[in-house]
Amino acid sequence: MAVYTEVSDDELAAFLAAFDVGELLSFKGIAEGVENTNYIVATTLGQFILTLYEKRVAPADLPFFLGLMDHLSAKQLACPTPIHDRVGEALGQLAGRPAALISFLDGIWIRRPQPVHCRAVGAAMAQMHLAGSDFTMRRKNALGFADWRPLFERFETDADRVFAGLGDGVRSELDALAEAWPRDLPEGIIHADLFPDNVFFRGEQISGLIDFYFACNDAHAYDLAIALNAWCFEQDLAFNVTKARALLAGYSAVRPLTSDEVSALPTLCRGAALRFLLTRAYDWLHTPTTAFVKPHDPVPYFRRMRFHATIRSATEYGWERPE
Amino acid sequence: MAVYTEVSDDELAAFLAAFDVGELLSFKGIAEGVENTNYIVATTLGQFILTLYEKRVAPADLPFFLGLMDHLSAKQLACPTPIHDRVGEALGQLAGRPAALISFLDGIWIRRPQPVHCRAVGAAMAQMHLAGSDFTMRRKNALGFADWRPLFERFETDADRVFAGLGDGVRSELDALAEAWPRDLPEGIIHADLFPDNVFFRGEQISGLIDFYFACNDAHAYDLAIALNAWCFEQDLAFNVTKARALLAGYSAVRPLTSDEVSALPTLCRGAALRFLLTRAYDWLHTPTTAFVKPHDPVPYFRRMRFHATIRSATEYGWERPE
Repeated sequence: MAVYTEVSDDELAAFLAAFDVGELLSFKGIAEGVENTNYIVATTLGQFILTLYEKRVAPADLPFFLGLMDHLSAKQLACPTPIHDRVGEALGQLAGRPAALISFLDGIWIRRPQPVHCRAVGAAMAQMHLAGSDFTMRRKNALGFADWRPLFERFETDADRVFAGLGDGVRSELDALAEAWPRDLPEGIIHADLFPDNVFFRGEQISGLIDFYFACNDAHAYDLAIALNAWCFEQDLAFNVTKARALLAGYSAVRPLTSDEVSALPTLCRGAALRFLLTRAYDWLHTPTTAFVKPHDPVPYFRRMRFHATIRSATEYGWERPE
Repeated sequence: MAVYTEVSDDELAAFLAAFDVGELLSFKGIAEGVENTNYIVATTLGQFILTLYEKRVAPADLPFFLGLMDHLSAKQLACPTPIHDRVGEALGQLAGRPAALISFLDGIWIRRPQPVHCRAVGAAMAQMHLAGSDFTMRRKNALGFADWRPLFERFETDADRVFAGLGDGVRSELDALAEAWPRDLPEGIIHADLFPDNVFFRGEQISGLIDFYFACNDAHAYDLAIALNAWCFEQDLAFNVTKARALLAGYSAVRPLTSDEVSALPTLCRGAALRFLLTRAYDWLHTPTTAFVKPHDPVPYFRRMRFHATIRSATEYGWERPE
């Protein structure tokens, strides 16, 4: 929730001059987005998002992210499309940062999703997984299963400063997952951060998925486990099985789940909760109190993780084998 | 630079239902603006700014601010126009805040103004002063000359915690201004905060003035003194007489200055610098370090104030009596 990098009018004009996008009409920083700086740019030819990539995004990953958006757009998946300049480049430089101009997507994100939205997001995720199947670039998940223990070790001695019991809770969970983590599930391109603020709707229809800056190659069902954590708990952290049922049904209607994927779902959900718990706890300890961005509270992901540890099979998530 | 108040999609839909503005297409928080929460709302009929008034704006003042924008728009001054709902109301409630939907103004604000921009802003300010002359509502300047000493007394004992010498500097300036402050200058509606980020340009032409939430009744020439502080100093705080000459010439070509106004200009500029020094110093001491908004540095306004105290007549600002 911040503009990190200010762009002067001269710099902006020089950047836009490389594109065939018409004459500049307006230019406003957006408060949403915690990783990058985003501006809405309006020109005589339309609206665009101008993204300046800040230090949490590795420049070496940008061709993957922009190439993926190009690929998915070409497959008719509704997502932002990078605008290429007159010599075909999508990635430029602005105010000392890597920067890209990207198509503007209509729609709003849903603050209080209902089952109908969960069903739609499940279907859209499965479409994305299928559309990504012939994308030729690869990116390792930088926050995947193998990264959780090293990430935890970076703040293990301070963990209980976040809240009492965090250290022991994470240690026992890491040990349990080391035993149970599934191998050989179907893999491919995953979004890896498909939270409600990354899915735009017009009414009950999805108008697009955004923010592919965690996208990578990993197990498809792990992406679904992330969404189950992000979409199917109420404010008070009660699990809403109706929403989970809709999410799983929406997904599997487009891309049927294998029996291994269904069996692994409770473990994948524990892991997904742990992954967000770890980054939130790390940020909680490392965000200066003077920062523009308030860190997310880690506690809700600890509680989700504990919930998933009680689940014995995907039927408790509302999973129903399709007829 | 922040969104203070989150608006849910349900609340937004209910708010917009009172207006004839078409179907909602998108909704994004803007990072600019430190007093209020602003969203860009796009509908099938166009773009709008949705403003939620936060605690620094007194609800009792809102009919004045919105009425002034209505009045100035009707006089063809380029400024945001409040949208009235089907029963004629411009002021509503949203997410527990007073809220208004306002027309979107094209243009960008100039990060590094040149003399041509200063001339244009002088002319636009004078047009605003003339257009406001038959506005019938009144609002006292809540940060006018009489308010500076009481504001200073609220943090006088802590003043030197902002920087050494602030307390003595302000005390001697308050005493000097008590002797010299001009009475009986021409008064009327002033903007009172016409900084570069409140003036939109397309190319070298002004496309509109925004942010009337400090507007009030006070001396016209005091508004010009605020602009001279805001537009005519370089980053290193060197005074740029070419810019000031352009600002004064642009203003007086539309609304000629009286000889009393010209004589008073150095004193008014000292006062204007002190006014921003005082609010910035106060905010510096009272903004929690966890706040989203970083307080502005007060030092540059101390240095401007000291500069103006050395000025003996408006000719040193580049003032040239028109032929």
